[in-house]
Amino acid sequence: MQKNPLSHRMASKTIQLVDASGNPVTGKEVAIHQTNHKFLFGCGIFDVIPIANRNVPEDRLAYLEQKLDLFLEVFNFATLPFYWGMFEPEQGKPRTKELQVAARWLKERNIAVKGHPLCWHTATVPWLLDLSNEDILKAQFARIERDVTDFKGLIEMWDVINEVVIMPIFDKYDNGITRISKDLGRVGIIKEMFAKTRESNPGATLLLNDFNTSINYEILIDGCLNAGIPIDAIGIQSHQHQGYWGREKLEEVLERFSHFGLPIHFTENTLTSGHLMPADIEDLNDYQIPEWPSTPEFEERQAREVEEMYSILFQHPLVEAITAWNFSDEGAWLGAPAGLVRTDNTPKPAYDVLKQRIKGDWSTQVTTRTDENGRVSFEGFLGEYELVCGGTKVTFKIEKEGEPEPLTFN
Amino acid sequence: MQKNPLSHRMASKTIQLVDASGNPVTGKEVAIHQTNHKFLFGCGIFDVIPIANRNVPEDRLAYLEQKLDLFLEVFNFATLPFYWGMFEPEQGKPRTKELQVAARWLKERNIAVKGHPLCWHTATVPWLLDLSNEDILKAQFARIERDVTDFKGLIEMWDVINEVVIMPIFDKYDNGITRISKDLGRVGIIKEMFAKTRESNPGATLLLNDFNTSINYEILIDGCLNAGIPIDAIGIQSHQHQGYWGREKLEEVLERFSHFGLPIHFTENTLTSGHLMPADIEDLNDYQIPEWPSTPEFEERQAREVEEMYSILFQHPLVEAITAWNFSDEGAWLGAPAGLVRTDNTPKPAYDVLKQRIKGDWSTQVTTRTDENGRVSFEGFLGEYELVCGGTKVTFKIEKEGEPEPLTFN
Repeated sequence: MQKNPLSHRMASKTIQLVDASGNPVTGKEVAIHQTNHKFLFGCGIFDVIPIANRNVPEDRLAYLEQKLDLFLEVFNFATLPFYWGMFEPEQGKPRTKELQVAARWLKERNIAVKGHPLCWHTATVPWLLDLSNEDILKAQFARIERDVTDFKGLIEMWDVINEVVIMPIFDKYDNGITRISKDLGRVGIIKEMFAKTRESNPGATLLLNDFNTSINYEILIDGCLNAGIPIDAIGIQSHQHQGYWGREKLEEVLERFSHFGLPIHFTENTLTSGHLMPADIEDLNDYQIPEWPSTPEFEERQAREVEEMYSILFQHPLVEAITAWNFSDEGAWLGAPAGLVRTDNTPKPAYDVLKQRIKGDWSTQVTTRTDENGRVSFEGFLGEYELVCGGTKVTFKIEKEGEPEPLTFN
Repeated sequence: MQKNPLSHRMASKTIQLVDASGNPVTGKEVAIHQTNHKFLFGCGIFDVIPIANRNVPEDRLAYLEQKLDLFLEVFNFATLPFYWGMFEPEQGKPRTKELQVAARWLKERNIAVKGHPLCWHTATVPWLLDLSNEDILKAQFARIERDVTDFKGLIEMWDVINEVVIMPIFDKYDNGITRISKDLGRVGIIKEMFAKTRESNPGATLLLNDFNTSINYEILIDGCLNAGIPIDAIGIQSHQHQGYWGREKLEEVLERFSHFGLPIHFTENTLTSGHLMPADIEDLNDYQIPEWPSTPEFEERQAREVEEMYSILFQHPLVEAITAWNFSDEGAWLGAPAGLVRTDNTPKPAYDVLKQRIKGDWSTQVTTRTDENGRVSFEGFLGEYELVCGGTKVTFKIEKEGEPEPLTFN
């Protein structure tokens, strides 16, 4: 018998239905329906900010709402932007309220939210350059303490620090974060930022995130863990503008980053439906073209690649989240056709493929009858469920640990 | 006034000469002569083993003694081989006595000795392959404890672990050390080996050593230090069979590895007096040729490169040791003409250049007269000295710290 390659994503559940007097409800039809996944299927979905705050013209709002409806049909996880330079463009005037409204909007729709990132050398605030390194560190600490505290209960997951492998040798322009990373060293700055974030929200899930998937990042993580830094999950970026990694590289990366035994999040995934960026471009930001069209042929390629990549990641026991970096081509990074929907909000084949997987093949729907003891038993994907029997509905969870235990429903 | 670029290698000393009654010895000629350097100028000099043990034929012994005389004329530091596979070719029969005799021979000649290496995936013992990983680790610990203890007082400096960047991904052949490094992780195995070595000889100087000078090694060191691993000095290999790094790369490597503030040892330096190995060879061990001659033209190049490289390193305040990996072409690694002397024991220009620097330009010899208080004052390179006045001789040291304080001589 072949082992189910997704058995680590599933568990068994037994529910007993009893009536008001405590007698088993036998031979009745029940409908069981998975309403949410434990696995995090996400997108970078910054458009939630204007939608939730309703601070754009009506026609723009309608367009964005249409986009978001498509997002909500499939996904359960969203990354919101906390780039310091955009979050606090004027010193002392952070966009806290606006982002809280956005995070609450998502929370009300049962979408888990991650804040990205708390510390990064890119898109940081320019006024750090006027400070001494000691004061830059203080400002960065204050920023973390303020924002992580302000969003407690709304955001329980943070990309604490971003792209540390390159951070101290980043030389495109001077910035405050590179300056302090030179002082503290890579492991040192990670240690400080994690400690401050942990202190500000002890229960949050904290990630280290990098686009570097080489041995550099492996050694950095190894050093951090040996230095006692409480990393909850390893964040791996996978912007594949220059071509899909393919099964071999993907499995090789998974193998190498699995040694730590930590959860792995694919935090920023890009597979475009356009021509490939030339392989000789080293920094993706250097590729600037006036138009990067999505074409039917490349949309089919994107769909195949998305299907394979998500399948490999969903089968891997340590992967707990995949975030498509751009939900839509509209406003996508580098102008690439990186979205799952086009600029006119029509779904691409990749969207349909993902919806079929996430809401179909990897989701559990059961219609059955209670047995002579009023019981129904089934195996389902981990996550949240509702069960309907007659006019009554109950919600429950399927979790890996502590399972199976019968649930009584009356 | 230009700052002396070697001022960090020097200190001032004042000595007062008094006679048996305590009266200053005025107007007398004194000769001051540096007998040893604080800086470690070394070679890999494994030939000490047969010489000290006198276990080779007479003519071979005479040849080796001639070689060693040339070594002793210039150097004050020697690396002895502790490759496990050669040190204990038959399990339970380590060559302890033989190596103790060699280390003692060097110690008697005022040569500091380093043991190389205690843990390495190459040239380790094959019988580790029959053990469980748990037992491999125990065997490696036992090896360290035994050997570091057996050589206490003779060897106070160890390359604790060698080439860890590649260790867990080394795939040329299976070996016990790669196996346990996969289990422990890079920082983990370094931590374990340093702890065991430190426990076995708390006062010893312990090095991490690698040929990888990339960001990988930087991040590894950063991780180790943040994990509290007591690294005393950073070991950098510089086998330049494919061509001299040149000033720019050398200074760039020094700059990057200086951030840790730790002493830096150039542990294995090679600059050949032959043709260059082709640049496309990735593992130097793959280059096997029947003959690799030393030529007059390339000997001149080697001398220029040796002079520049040693000058740059001697000027750098954190560098404390340079080891020429092969003193002689005879028996040099890969058959390369890597020595400072030829196979017939004639010195190459590089030998003469180094001797001129080490025993001349970077050494202090003073002839002067005591003043009206019986004093002589001078600035000298750090190290050991003797002072001769009339028929009397005294030895003293010039050290950076606690200087200057007058020394009374009577």
